[in-house]
Amino acid sequence: MSQYQAPLNDIYFNLFSVWQLDRYWQQQPQLSEQLEIDTARAILEEAAKICEQQIAPYAAAADKRGAQLQDGTVSLPEHYYTAYQSLAEGGWTGLSGDAEYGGMGMPKALSMMVDEMLCSADIAFSLYPGLTAGACVALLQHADDATKALYLPKMYSGEWSGTMCLTEAHAGSDLGIMRTTAKPNTDDSYAISGSKIFITAGEHDLTSNIIHLVLAKLPDAPAGSRGISLFLVPKYLPADNAEPGERNKVTVGSIEHKMGINGSATCVLNFDDATGYLIGEPNRGLACMFTMMNYERLSMGSQGLGAAERAYQNAVSYAKERLQGRISEKDANKAEPIIGHADVRRMLLNIKAMNEAGRTFATWVASLLDKAKYDNCPVSAQRANLLTPIAKAFMTDQGFDACVTAQQVFGGHGYIKEWGMEQLVRDVRIAQIYEGTNGIQAADFMLRKVAADKGDALISLLNEISAEIAEVPQAGSVLLAEYINELQQLTGELLAQDFRAQSANACDYLAAVSYVLYGYMWYKNLCALDSAEVSDSFKHAKHITAAYYFARVLPKAKGLFAVLSEDTAGIDSLSPDYF
Amino acid sequence: MSQYQAPLNDIYFNLFSVWQLDRYWQQQPQLSEQLEIDTARAILEEAAKICEQQIAPYAAAADKRGAQLQDGTVSLPEHYYTAYQSLAEGGWTGLSGDAEYGGMGMPKALSMMVDEMLCSADIAFSLYPGLTAGACVALLQHADDATKALYLPKMYSGEWSGTMCLTEAHAGSDLGIMRTTAKPNTDDSYAISGSKIFITAGEHDLTSNIIHLVLAKLPDAPAGSRGISLFLVPKYLPADNAEPGERNKVTVGSIEHKMGINGSATCVLNFDDATGYLIGEPNRGLACMFTMMNYERLSMGSQGLGAAERAYQNAVSYAKERLQGRISEKDANKAEPIIGHADVRRMLLNIKAMNEAGRTFATWVASLLDKAKYDNCPVSAQRANLLTPIAKAFMTDQGFDACVTAQQVFGGHGYIKEWGMEQLVRDVRIAQIYEGTNGIQAADFMLRKVAADKGDALISLLNEISAEIAEVPQAGSVLLAEYINELQQLTGELLAQDFRAQSANACDYLAAVSYVLYGYMWYKNLCALDSAEVSDSFKHAKHITAAYYFARVLPKAKGLFAVLSEDTAGIDSLSPDYF
Repeated sequence: MSQYQAPLNDIYFNLFSVWQLDRYWQQQPQLSEQLEIDTARAILEEAAKICEQQIAPYAAAADKRGAQLQDGTVSLPEHYYTAYQSLAEGGWTGLSGDAEYGGMGMPKALSMMVDEMLCSADIAFSLYPGLTAGACVALLQHADDATKALYLPKMYSGEWSGTMCLTEAHAGSDLGIMRTTAKPNTDDSYAISGSKIFITAGEHDLTSNIIHLVLAKLPDAPAGSRGISLFLVPKYLPADNAEPGERNKVTVGSIEHKMGINGSATCVLNFDDATGYLIGEPNRGLACMFTMMNYERLSMGSQGLGAAERAYQNAVSYAKERLQGRISEKDANKAEPIIGHADVRRMLLNIKAMNEAGRTFATWVASLLDKAKYDNCPVSAQRANLLTPIAKAFMTDQGFDACVTAQQVFGGHGYIKEWGMEQLVRDVRIAQIYEGTNGIQAADFMLRKVAADKGDALISLLNEISAEIAEVPQAGSVLLAEYINELQQLTGELLAQDFRAQSANACDYLAAVSYVLYGYMWYKNLCALDSAEVSDSFKHAKHITAAYYFARVLPKAKGLFAVLSEDTAGIDSLSPDYF
Repeated sequence: MSQYQAPLNDIYFNLFSVWQLDRYWQQQPQLSEQLEIDTARAILEEAAKICEQQIAPYAAAADKRGAQLQDGTVSLPEHYYTAYQSLAEGGWTGLSGDAEYGGMGMPKALSMMVDEMLCSADIAFSLYPGLTAGACVALLQHADDATKALYLPKMYSGEWSGTMCLTEAHAGSDLGIMRTTAKPNTDDSYAISGSKIFITAGEHDLTSNIIHLVLAKLPDAPAGSRGISLFLVPKYLPADNAEPGERNKVTVGSIEHKMGINGSATCVLNFDDATGYLIGEPNRGLACMFTMMNYERLSMGSQGLGAAERAYQNAVSYAKERLQGRISEKDANKAEPIIGHADVRRMLLNIKAMNEAGRTFATWVASLLDKAKYDNCPVSAQRANLLTPIAKAFMTDQGFDACVTAQQVFGGHGYIKEWGMEQLVRDVRIAQIYEGTNGIQAADFMLRKVAADKGDALISLLNEISAEIAEVPQAGSVLLAEYINELQQLTGELLAQDFRAQSANACDYLAAVSYVLYGYMWYKNLCALDSAEVSDSFKHAKHITAAYYFARVLPKAKGLFAVLSEDTAGIDSLSPDYF
């Protein structure tokens, strides 16, 4: 496998040219002192070094060794300990953490770039700091001051890590039927009992304590998802000196044997009257957890993009070195690099066009989250909400496809473990499933984000884009405008449908919208090129790839439009027995 | 994982109603005596039993244990030995073998159904009889009588097995640059030297001898692919009594660690002056091997279909049992089977619609191969040639997608090994790669099968179909006719393109043609329903699924049409350094 190189040039281009976030950052009182453009570059360069040198080269070894359960604790691949130490020492574990509690207070748009690099290096490893960061977001927003003061500094510093404990064996997408209970103790704590499965980083010895955020039901809880509360359950109860004290009654039952991300300890956790503390209001746990979930969902997109970026780099490197076949009729015994073959170029350009649009898209969503936070801007918040399911579902679907396509470039070697391509496919596959399956994301998008507000958020966004590309057209803008028109018309038709038809259309609709918005991302890339301080070759490649996207990728949306224009009545015509 | 049940009803429907092959078989002097419809059913039922009971339940164990190399030989999962024994004793290993040499002489359309069942049960296992059958086809067609008499009976009986040794480390799709040499010995044999990789079933102790078919170059061979000859290299040289004698100088160097099909011994084989016998004419080895490859390519399609069928059965079973969420607003603490959810139905119907069309398609191709053989019919042979790359590429691409989609139905459980879904994804992935990657198949289809004869074979087929559906229309026929028209027009445009543009369009074009032909398959299913002796529920499900295909699957071709209508100039605009 080739050496991973963080795509810093494209990252800088997105941050500073496409979305001009350096200017935005300078306008923020919370950020302006510390976040000069050079600081941002330095942060990203250092993160890149850790990913490139300490994590990426050992991802295959981590996959092979995996997480291992023995005597009630889980040990991890050896280099995870040193790499995690490096991350913690450099402040990366608290990169986006609140400065009041010891975090670095960096914007999401920046930390998201680090997420991507970590995921390129090793998705399984990235989950340890990733889950911790997510747990911190939930605590920061919903915990009381004392709890925040006790836990957040330890978690930002990387001393302690975090988890989210939602799923039970019988309750996955449907959390309302969960059975884990929380009974009030005589003090202000609760006794948590139940069994949770699929708990990422649920048990390990990477950190001296693990802070579980657990969903459970109070004795008098209403039925269903409105009766779920959120509890903080530390592995070790903090002693008076804030160091890990008494062992809490949460134990690991087993670890799952999975298709991939083998370095990640995916645990069954058993809570047996474990001591927990209520976070937020009673019965509002799902809303609190969704604070974390929304944060995580963009990070899922980064998993798709990160894996796809690494897969792309490997495939390009292989395609340049592998000699096979002749492009023109020359010496029959002499082969040429396969990157000359049209079909190999097609595969690579497909990946490249999707990856770069995906990076621009993720930066967009992250910047909207930042604007919602720093400017308290409701439009940005609404737009981030609208785009989050796309970031999760489309970016992971495309990430998976990209890894499969890149594996295909390797021919038979792609199927052999030593080349690393099959691991990328196995690892990234989970991102389409966890944190809400992509089907759940599509339903969220179609039903809650589009239908529930009668399409206002989406239509107003599409109108803005139409106006923008009409005012300053770029290559491909005429075509893009046509697709936007068609999408708007189709959206009107879907809005008139009943819940059942909308549910049946959700997945294809999410993809159709995504292709169009990725077209807008390429438009934004083109707009930024004129004034960007980038090399001519960078500009040239962007122009070519944009043209490729408009000619050879965007038209795929026509198939989705055609599907969505057809009747869905058949979806309910077959009784379960006839399947 | 649910118990695998061979889809015998749909198999019978395809053989006896859709393609009415029982009538055709009765007209064949070579077949009529032995192949009554009841005989065919009995053969398929017995094969189903072996697959269902002796192979399918242990596929996960075979994956876990894998093939293991020790002391120069490879041992296999324990039940492979007994299952193989059952296959051999029942005559399955020689099912399609020539009766003159001890085979059962059954038509391809029948043996292909057994292939599908074996692949549903365990793709890795299926390769041992599969490669042997392929090797026998090549020997039957190209070896001299003495060689056939010596080897074929042993191979048909399952005592000996076969391999095909093509790939070298530096020579995969481009066999012309291979380095393995064949030097004439003083007798009629040759000394074969070189190293071959990715040799399926290259070494094992399942059979008492292994017959390698090896491509190598004679000393005076012309350069490139026109200088390759085919040699038979037995692991043990047959003694005078035809039993395995002296050990030949072919040894296993290592076995590959792969993404899946772990029960298959994928070997590096080293030939060190191994004794080989020329098969066919000198320097015509590639043509001889392609006899085998074409046979194998339809079998690859069966791998895609077989895995997809099993994935579908598992997903349906899970979707009926898994309780999650409510379809209507009822008790918030009570969940309903997820098969009620529109998006789950969408996933299942997508798979079902593709699988059943795929089975009809594979039966069609097999019947064309049979007609080419028994009737010596050039039109059938040409049509089989035209459709073979589709059977290989589209059926395996769809098979992979089906397994991924079925895995998605399981949510998080789909990612856990014990449910078996991730194994299906890992196993079937290879079918898109080996026996000529799907990119190679697309090039073969676009350039050799369509462009080289100016589209005659395809256009005449499409014209026939148009006439047929116009004469006896069925539900969906109007839409299908439109798609055929659009495809014909598009084909005309592609025929006018240069080699480079055609190469860039090949993959999408193959898929576009396939969607249309699958529409024709659903048409054929509908046509057969009226007179078929099938249950009302079978008919009902076919009508619903056909309608689903026309409304929700076929329109995907619109996206491909749109891509293919666009310029491909960009494909060559980016220099390798800019990727």
